Amino acid sequence: MTEIRPINWTGSSLQLLDQTLLPHQHVTVTITDYRTAAAAITEMRVRGAPAIGVTAAYAVVLAAAELQSRERDHFIDALRQAGAHIAAARPTAVNLGWAVRRMLRVADAEPDPGSIRPRLEAEARRIQEEDENINRRIGENGRSLMPPDGQGVLTHCNTGALATSAFGTALGVIRAGWEAGGRFRVFNTETRPWLQGARLTSWEFQQLGIPATLVADSAAGILMQRGEVSCVITGADRVAANGDTANKIGTYSLAVLARENGIPFYIAAPTSTVDLAIAHGDSIAIEERPEHEVTGYGATPIAPEGTPAYNPAFDVTPHRYIAGIITETMVCRPPYTESLQQAVDAA
Amino acid sequence: MTEIRPINWTGSSLQLLDQTLLPHQHVTVTITDYRTAAAAITEMRVRGAPAIGVTAAYAVVLAAAELQSRERDHFIDALRQAGAHIAAARPTAVNLGWAVRRMLRVADAEPDPGSIRPRLEAEARRIQEEDENINRRIGENGRSLMPPDGQGVLTHCNTGALATSAFGTALGVIRAGWEAGGRFRVFNTETRPWLQGARLTSWEFQQLGIPATLVADSAAGILMQRGEVSCVITGADRVAANGDTANKIGTYSLAVLARENGIPFYIAAPTSTVDLAIAHGDSIAIEERPEHEVTGYGATPIAPEGTPAYNPAFDVTPHRYIAGIITETMVCRPPYTESLQQAVDAA
Repeated sequence: MTEIRPINWTGSSLQLLDQTLLPHQHVTVTITDYRTAAAAITEMRVRGAPAIGVTAAYAVVLAAAELQSRERDHFIDALRQAGAHIAAARPTAVNLGWAVRRMLRVADAEPDPGSIRPRLEAEARRIQEEDENINRRIGENGRSLMPPDGQGVLTHCNTGALATSAFGTALGVIRAGWEAGGRFRVFNTETRPWLQGARLTSWEFQQLGIPATLVADSAAGILMQRGEVSCVITGADRVAANGDTANKIGTYSLAVLARENGIPFYIAAPTSTVDLAIAHGDSIAIEERPEHEVTGYGATPIAPEGTPAYNPAFDVTPHRYIAGIITETMVCRPPYTESLQQAVDAA
Repeated sequence: MTEIRPINWTGSSLQLLDQTLLPHQHVTVTITDYRTAAAAITEMRVRGAPAIGVTAAYAVVLAAAELQSRERDHFIDALRQAGAHIAAARPTAVNLGWAVRRMLRVADAEPDPGSIRPRLEAEARRIQEEDENINRRIGENGRSLMPPDGQGVLTHCNTGALATSAFGTALGVIRAGWEAGGRFRVFNTETRPWLQGARLTSWEFQQLGIPATLVADSAAGILMQRGEVSCVITGADRVAANGDTANKIGTYSLAVLARENGIPFYIAAPTSTVDLAIAHGDSIAIEERPEHEVTGYGATPIAPEGTPAYNPAFDVTPHRYIAGIITETMVCRPPYTESLQQAVDAA
């Protein structure tokens, strides 16, 4: 199948496929400084928890190139400040802070200031390669959970190659099921307000040659009620130690509807998304995004001028709604406090 | 408060505020033949169950003016055919068929063919006036169900003056609560794919001076989970004898989420929306609308070309999720098989 790789490192710059313009325009932006890389995360030119992590790692490499000086301590301090700036680009995805911390540890461990930048570059490349590898293992671990031929799976938002280094998480599980010969039906939500499903997921399924039917977020209920969906699978932006999961706004609704209709609801996410430092979902910061994403579509206003809007980008699905969390090491089942720890230990 | 009247009869033509162009353009279309009136219903230039009923009644008047001939039986036959054409404009709203049948009964009862058109005109005006009066009574009956000051009510789609002759059903209940001095908070969903909430409900609340916050359909869950919503109220396109209720796509999801969060879910609808001939919701025909409503917004494509979409316009909320059905005669409570019969008998 076609491989889509949204993040490319040239050795001196980061090239991102601009996801704000897909599917109608395919524009690659070249980024040579860490502030622009952080802004690209905030502006959602790159999005999806694993892709944000990889971008953040390269952003630290760019920062190292910019800030490099002879005096090691001063260099490390400046790098740490740049790391804090990068980590603040979006609040919910745990991979962002995880990648920055991992990069800063590498810098800390390198005594020769002249070697820090090459070390960081090697580490960022490693994070990117690992991510693809991890996604393929998530796909392997999850593919047997896909429904029998003719039955339906529903997914939300975009969790494909565009959200990662390659292959994808929840979309990767669906792809792995198809590659193994499964011929189940696929439904994907449009995912308002940013329309990642309609714009990105529909495009990826089209590239992969997997037939998928687009629905409004609000049509997921009737699909489940009518028996058209046998399982739901989404990604995650942060998983608390007890399994409570933050993911794109609307995920909680899908999980409640799935349980009400006796349908298993799965999460697919790398262990880098698991935040064992957070006991439960109430402590997860939920990003609120600009009102204009709800009051309009792109440049097209929808609501009357002056309409106030509430635009949380994520919601938290309590662990009791989740039938399984598919990681690269294992499929975690309740009680998650034990199984997630096991999955992280095995990573 | 401002009165919005989307349907006006001039004596010889029907003037409709074109709801496909709101809120950014205020265009009134003048309709002088019944086929164009039926097309305006199909194309959603006028929408909302009660407004569809009123428009259908005037469409029958237009048909009578077009089809009038000396021979009474031939005239009635032609009128009946026109009525069938009008009633087929959309499948789910019961008021459409109800209004056409009521009009045809008036024609049947009038022996003088020359008097049929004026009789029909008087009856259509009566249906329109009754609708406004009924909506105000629904508002009176429901306003005490609105939450205390500072707590929130969530509504879906547009059920205001634009969906009726004036005042509205679910939005009318919210308005009646505000007119009675309640200062609760109002949230309205954008209501994909046709965006009646963002385009029409936000506009009506703005006209009425009632502060309302717009949310994506998929953000209703987090609002409920966080305790921001103390009740949910929507309209209905058809209510079966057992209380199962067809309404705009996404209503079922809101009802499930409300029950999961211990929040009462109410329906506000005139008794003309109650279809006692239908025992339960499984028998309600669900309209499927064009794919392009989901694959694009207006003229703006969202999904890649060739993306298939499933676009049911309505879903059915089983009666067990509904805390009360507010009609013009009474607030029906479970068991609905009894209370709805009572409400209809009292109308």
